[in-house]
Amino acid sequence: MTVKIALDAMGGDYAPGEVVKGAVIAAREYNVSLLLVGKEAQIRDELSKYNTKNLDIEIKNTDEVIEMNEPPGKALRTKKNASIVLAVQAVANGEAQAVVAAGSTGAAMAASLLGLGRLPGIDRPAISCVLPSIQKPVVLIDAGANSDCDAKMLYQFAIMGRIFAKSVLGYENPSVGIMNIGEEEGKGNELVKEAYNIMKSHKENLNFIGNIEGRDIIKGDCHVIVCDGFVGNVILKAVEGVGTMLFKLIKEQFEANIFTKMLGLMVKPLFKNVMAKVNYEEYGGALLLGVKGVTVISHGSSKAYAIKNAIRVAKEAVENDINGKIIATYEKNAL
Amino acid sequence: MTVKIALDAMGGDYAPGEVVKGAVIAAREYNVSLLLVGKEAQIRDELSKYNTKNLDIEIKNTDEVIEMNEPPGKALRTKKNASIVLAVQAVANGEAQAVVAAGSTGAAMAASLLGLGRLPGIDRPAISCVLPSIQKPVVLIDAGANSDCDAKMLYQFAIMGRIFAKSVLGYENPSVGIMNIGEEEGKGNELVKEAYNIMKSHKENLNFIGNIEGRDIIKGDCHVIVCDGFVGNVILKAVEGVGTMLFKLIKEQFEANIFTKMLGLMVKPLFKNVMAKVNYEEYGGALLLGVKGVTVISHGSSKAYAIKNAIRVAKEAVENDINGKIIATYEKNAL
Repeated sequence: MTVKIALDAMGGDYAPGEVVKGAVIAAREYNVSLLLVGKEAQIRDELSKYNTKNLDIEIKNTDEVIEMNEPPGKALRTKKNASIVLAVQAVANGEAQAVVAAGSTGAAMAASLLGLGRLPGIDRPAISCVLPSIQKPVVLIDAGANSDCDAKMLYQFAIMGRIFAKSVLGYENPSVGIMNIGEEEGKGNELVKEAYNIMKSHKENLNFIGNIEGRDIIKGDCHVIVCDGFVGNVILKAVEGVGTMLFKLIKEQFEANIFTKMLGLMVKPLFKNVMAKVNYEEYGGALLLGVKGVTVISHGSSKAYAIKNAIRVAKEAVENDINGKIIATYEKNAL
Repeated sequence: MTVKIALDAMGGDYAPGEVVKGAVIAAREYNVSLLLVGKEAQIRDELSKYNTKNLDIEIKNTDEVIEMNEPPGKALRTKKNASIVLAVQAVANGEAQAVVAAGSTGAAMAASLLGLGRLPGIDRPAISCVLPSIQKPVVLIDAGANSDCDAKMLYQFAIMGRIFAKSVLGYENPSVGIMNIGEEEGKGNELVKEAYNIMKSHKENLNFIGNIEGRDIIKGDCHVIVCDGFVGNVILKAVEGVGTMLFKLIKEQFEANIFTKMLGLMVKPLFKNVMAKVNYEEYGGALLLGVKGVTVISHGSSKAYAIKNAIRVAKEAVENDINGKIIATYEKNAL
C-alpha cells in the first residue's frame, strides 16, 4: 500500500515554495502519495513549475495559517481550520498516515496531541531528533516537548527513542544513555538519579550504558541520548549556535584579502564534505513520538531538500510501524 | 600590596611541569607572589629549568594528591594533607588571597566550600565560567556546582555573575538572561519561570533582558547567562564537544592527499586566528563564586598558558574585591 503523507504546505520560512518543491521531489523519489494543505491558489502556482505527471499529489484548501511567533494554544483555539490542524486531521480520520510540518513547533506539537491523542501507556509524547556524530548519527530524546519531566517519562523516552533508532537510523540494538554531568552512578540531579535506577533495572532490554556527558554526544557511542525536554532543547540550540559561529569565524578569515579568497575557493569542496556530515537537513526533521499517528516536525528554515528528507522519515516511520512497536515494547516493559 | 596566590601544583593532566611553568611566567608578568603546594622535590626540579631570580615563589611540601577520578568526598576525608586542601588552607588562614587548581573540579569545589565557607547571604556557591561569542566573551553561571537549584539560587547566581563580568571581563553594565527554551515570558520549566518573575522585579539592578535560547549564547548580546548547574555543565561540555568534532572533521579533510595537505599548510594561520578567538585558555579557568576567598578552577588539560591566565583571573578577582562587591550588592538586593 502506498503511504499517504499530509503536509502543512504553509509552514516554515520558505513556504509554500520550498515545501511544494520538496514534496514533488519526494513524490517522485519515494513513491508516496501526498496531501498538500494550505492556500490552494498559491500551492497550484508552485506545483505548475514542475512536471507532476503520474504523481499522486492532492490539495486541501484552507486560508488559515498559524505563524511562527503566534502562541500555539491561542492560535489553535481561534484558527480551527489552520493548515497544520487540517493536516493533522487528515491523519486522525485515516485519510493520511503521517503529517510533515515545518512551521511553529509548538503548534505542530499541540495540534498533534489534541488531534491524534497519546499512544496507550505513554504518559507524554516526546520529540526525537537526530544529531550528527563522528560515527553514525544519534538520537536525542526529548528535544523540547516536555520542560518538566519525571523519571518514568525518561524511561518511556528511552523505549521510544530506541525504536526510532532501530526503525529510522537502522541500528540493530541501539545503546541508551542518560545525559548527565558525570559518568559515575549517583551523579546529577534528582531526576536523572531516579531515571538511572529505573533504567539500570531494565539494563538488558534497553541496552543501557549509563550516564554520558555533553562532550560524548559527538563521539557516537551512545545511540539514544535521553534527557528532559528542557535540557534537550537547550543542547540542540547551543550546538547549532556553536556550529554556526565556527563556520562564520572561518568564513571571515577567508574574506581577509585576495590571497585568502583564492584559498577559500580551493578549500570550498573540503568544507562542503564537512557540512554534508553535520547537515541536519539529511534527517529532515524530528519525530514527535508517543502520539497516535506519525508527526514529523521540520526546522523552520527547511528548504526543499530538508522537506524531501522529512517525507522520507515519515514514510519509514509508517512502513516500519513505529507506533505498533512502541505499544508492544512498552506493554512488555511497563513500569 | 602584592597579591599572593596558592597553586595546587599537582593538579591537572600536565602537573607539575606545566603548572610550574605557568606559575613562573605569571610571576614575571603579573608581579604576583606564589605558593606552590605539592611534592617539593618535583616542584624544585621543574623550577630549576627557569630563571626565578627576583620572583616570589614559595613551596609548601606535601605528598598527598587527589587524583582526577577519585570521588571528592571520600578523597577529602582520607587525604587531609592533599595539595588542594593545603592550598585552600593557605587562603583560609590568610597566607594567600586566592587558590588556583587544575585538578579534580569536584575536589577543588568541596575543599573550598569546607575550607573557606560561604559568603554571608549566599545560599550556594556557583561556578562562573567564560564562553567565547562572536562579540566579547560572556559568562555562564552555574557551570556545574549545583545540580538541583531553586529560583532564589538562580537570582544569586545572576548577582554574582554580573560582578564577575564587571570585574574580570570589563563590562560596565552587563546584561543578564535566563537560559531557556524560548524567549517569551512564561516559557520553560517551573524553575526558570519562577526565576524569571524574581529577576523581572529586579530588572533595573540586574539589567535583566529576559530569556535567551541556546543559539543566543554565541551572539554575545547576553553577558551573563544564568542557569542551574546541571544545564550549565551539559551545555559547556556539549559546546566543547561540537567544537572539537568540527575541527577534527575539517582536519581529516585536509589529510586526504598531497594537494589538500599543501592547502592545509597554507590555511593553517587562518585557523590559528579562529582558534585564538574560541580558546578557553585565554580565561584560564572558572571562578567558584560565593565562597570566602577566591578559587579559580582550571580545565584538567590546562597547559602553562592556561595556568598563567588563571593566575591573572585570580589576581584580578582579588584586586577588584569581587567578594566584597558580592556581599555589598546582595545586601542591598537580598530576597
